[in-house]
Amino acid sequence: MAAQTLDQIVSLCKRRGFIFPGSEIYGGLQGTFDYGPLGVELKNNLKRLWWQHNVYDRDDMEGLDSAILMNRWVWYYSGHEDTFVDPLVDCKLCKGRFRADKLQEASCLKHPKLHPGECEGELTEPRPFNMMFKTQVGPVPDPESFAYLRPETAQGIFINFKNVLDSTGRKLPFGVAQIGKAFRNEVTPRNFVFRTREFEQMEIEYFCRPGEDEAIHEAFIKDHLEWWIKVCGLSPDRLSLYEVPPHELAHYSKRTVDIMYRYPIGTEELEGIANRTDFDLGSHTRDQDKLQITAKVKKNEHSTERLTYFDQASNRHIVPYVIEPSAGVDRGVLAILCEAYDEERLDNGETRVVLRLKPALAPIKVAVLPLKKNEPQIVETAKRIKRMLQEAGEFRTVYDDTAGIGKLYRRQDEIGTPFCVTVDFDTIGRAEDNGLKDTVTVRDRDTMKQERVPIKELYNYIRERIMPKKG
Amino acid sequence: MAAQTLDQIVSLCKRRGFIFPGSEIYGGLQGTFDYGPLGVELKNNLKRLWWQHNVYDRDDMEGLDSAILMNRWVWYYSGHEDTFVDPLVDCKLCKGRFRADKLQEASCLKHPKLHPGECEGELTEPRPFNMMFKTQVGPVPDPESFAYLRPETAQGIFINFKNVLDSTGRKLPFGVAQIGKAFRNEVTPRNFVFRTREFEQMEIEYFCRPGEDEAIHEAFIKDHLEWWIKVCGLSPDRLSLYEVPPHELAHYSKRTVDIMYRYPIGTEELEGIANRTDFDLGSHTRDQDKLQITAKVKKNEHSTERLTYFDQASNRHIVPYVIEPSAGVDRGVLAILCEAYDEERLDNGETRVVLRLKPALAPIKVAVLPLKKNEPQIVETAKRIKRMLQEAGEFRTVYDDTAGIGKLYRRQDEIGTPFCVTVDFDTIGRAEDNGLKDTVTVRDRDTMKQERVPIKELYNYIRERIMPKKG
Repeated sequence: MAAQTLDQIVSLCKRRGFIFPGSEIYGGLQGTFDYGPLGVELKNNLKRLWWQHNVYDRDDMEGLDSAILMNRWVWYYSGHEDTFVDPLVDCKLCKGRFRADKLQEASCLKHPKLHPGECEGELTEPRPFNMMFKTQVGPVPDPESFAYLRPETAQGIFINFKNVLDSTGRKLPFGVAQIGKAFRNEVTPRNFVFRTREFEQMEIEYFCRPGEDEAIHEAFIKDHLEWWIKVCGLSPDRLSLYEVPPHELAHYSKRTVDIMYRYPIGTEELEGIANRTDFDLGSHTRDQDKLQITAKVKKNEHSTERLTYFDQASNRHIVPYVIEPSAGVDRGVLAILCEAYDEERLDNGETRVVLRLKPALAPIKVAVLPLKKNEPQIVETAKRIKRMLQEAGEFRTVYDDTAGIGKLYRRQDEIGTPFCVTVDFDTIGRAEDNGLKDTVTVRDRDTMKQERVPIKELYNYIRERIMPKKG
Repeated sequence: MAAQTLDQIVSLCKRRGFIFPGSEIYGGLQGTFDYGPLGVELKNNLKRLWWQHNVYDRDDMEGLDSAILMNRWVWYYSGHEDTFVDPLVDCKLCKGRFRADKLQEASCLKHPKLHPGECEGELTEPRPFNMMFKTQVGPVPDPESFAYLRPETAQGIFINFKNVLDSTGRKLPFGVAQIGKAFRNEVTPRNFVFRTREFEQMEIEYFCRPGEDEAIHEAFIKDHLEWWIKVCGLSPDRLSLYEVPPHELAHYSKRTVDIMYRYPIGTEELEGIANRTDFDLGSHTRDQDKLQITAKVKKNEHSTERLTYFDQASNRHIVPYVIEPSAGVDRGVLAILCEAYDEERLDNGETRVVLRLKPALAPIKVAVLPLKKNEPQIVETAKRIKRMLQEAGEFRTVYDDTAGIGKLYRRQDEIGTPFCVTVDFDTIGRAEDNGLKDTVTVRDRDTMKQERVPIKELYNYIRERIMPKKG
């Protein structure tokens, strides 16, 4: 049924160790979050599945991992220095600062932090506020020695276009994928990990010939929408496509389609898929005059490389078009948690909280539980099974004996563990001779059905239910 | 035989797409590097193997992924605001700035960048220069609204000690592992990815009772040294342990042992393993007065949490001791590349460059090569085999037909691909009936020996030679 409120998720995340507010013991740092023991596994699983689908399972993709700190000219020519801004107004009375486009009133009404009461101060004219974090680099504090923390991973791909081309010998069309941190000095970070100042992106820049761009764009929209459904388990009912209207498009964008997800906070962007034409490579290339760049770009006086592709068919250098699918890792994690969250009313009147995560995403794949913790043979067998499963190196396995079996099941349900393996008296052959020696109970998280499985078949039993299905 | 000079590695990295200088088309940004298509795979493989060994294969570890931007009080109480400094001197004549502890002379001799010639200016007294990158957070430029980019991942673990304890119910001893970026404004970044301003760490903070600390420390030294040898393939001859002498230890460190690797630039630290006593949790906890903290800590007036463990045996709150194994990802990548690099003189007088990477670390596991690119049936069969292998989702597989077979083999040798699969006339049954239909040649990178393997056994043949051995 999915989460009804964001609070359900925030509370679960803190309680069970998925996500904590950043720097919490010092009063926090707004817009930052720390992924806990379960969150880091969920996030890593999401990133790995994305990489597998977009890099390993395709013939036309390369990966990249570029630096967070980049030369400021990257952001000058990308346009971020000028245009990556929010319009801010100051209240002349209370000195509060607000986003002009988010204000309902022409005068300051209140600034909850500084003025618990209301304030009717006059507002200044809006001024642009750049959202890039800036930092001094090197020991000499000269005004030129600064760098920005990247506000997106994309530019790291564009500026390496020639490096990738030269080192791989790729032919068009091909793409470059990157997963990594990005930073934006948001005026009002909000909605848990939905809008933060530090976040992670999964981006592809797919390079193609002009003319191929529209079909490739369309194919990515279809493929990625399907990936969120099939691999991540998001419900088609809660997903939608938003065709960005022409007047909202960036000047270089030919078309942008957003994959939207219906979060408890409303329907919001999960991934944007844009046709960016030749704007990016055209912006960062040298010799712009000699190339037929269609997008409107700044005159580049600093780039040392031609970011072009030599097209043998036409015997000329072309500036490839770019299709950019850009997804938020944290938004993906949040969508997956919201989707998977379920409160189920049981026959006995109790409520069961269960995270119906796809097994491949679940932080823990198997919990091995002894029916009795004071029966050495049961405990020893359970620990042996735990080690056997974890030594295969494929799934995160835990052992837990710190409560009764019912409570242990609930604990695993709440964190989305798809399988609980229980070792009982039958397993160790202590019950009557019922043929169940060396078998265990495997309980399914979703159906709560239990199946008896021989220990020697356990690894394969779980493996085939956990590995993501292909095709 | 390993690399003889760093240049061999730098050149290979650029040419084949392992590592590029950061922001290269804009003249670079000193101390930053971008991992290319092969580098990102090698680095991810290293990180995954580390996580598997230190988190999945143990019963006493949790993972974490905390934010890079952290509240400034974290760095005040950790001591970094005061002591994470280099002593710098300025030249009064040429205005150059240098690390005082690296200067050979009492006067400025030259500053190669500003003064290509020599300079005999007088130097100022050394002044402390903090190596943490600082940035303004939030829209209001008030002097309190700043944060540091973390100079180490460790503190993110300490400040989440209680969150991890509460959400997992762990008992001492247990550890928390984290892999992530860290930033240091090095005065003189150098030696390729060895000393950079942006880098990645793999750190464990292992919490234990005072008294257990020495044995645990010793066990980590042994275990991690062995891991670098067995899993990463570093030669025991090039590894050594450095017992940091008492007068070089940080005031809180009871003992620190560094795992050193003999790089072409000299023997340098790959991983440091420190016994940090109760300094870290003691520094960040509230109620310091009520706890018996042995380390010398700053009086903490900001922390909102008690970072203690309730010990039932003694019925009191104790501040755990910490053992910290801290390894550099980029230093690991560099050591692995240096170790694996080999130039082999062949019988025909040619030189073969080969990266003898452990298969589990190799960026590409299998290359499928058609013997003839103008034989449609050979090409089609090779592509089919490529798809079959990559669809299993376990190894990065490539297809290459852009050169003759000898050259294709060399290309794969140079990037460390352990296996080349060649599809030839025998495979498609076009040669005489020699029983080789539906078999391929598998060539071993190291021995260059070729073996004939039936296509249907190929996946298992490769899998069992690639997966890291356990135990």
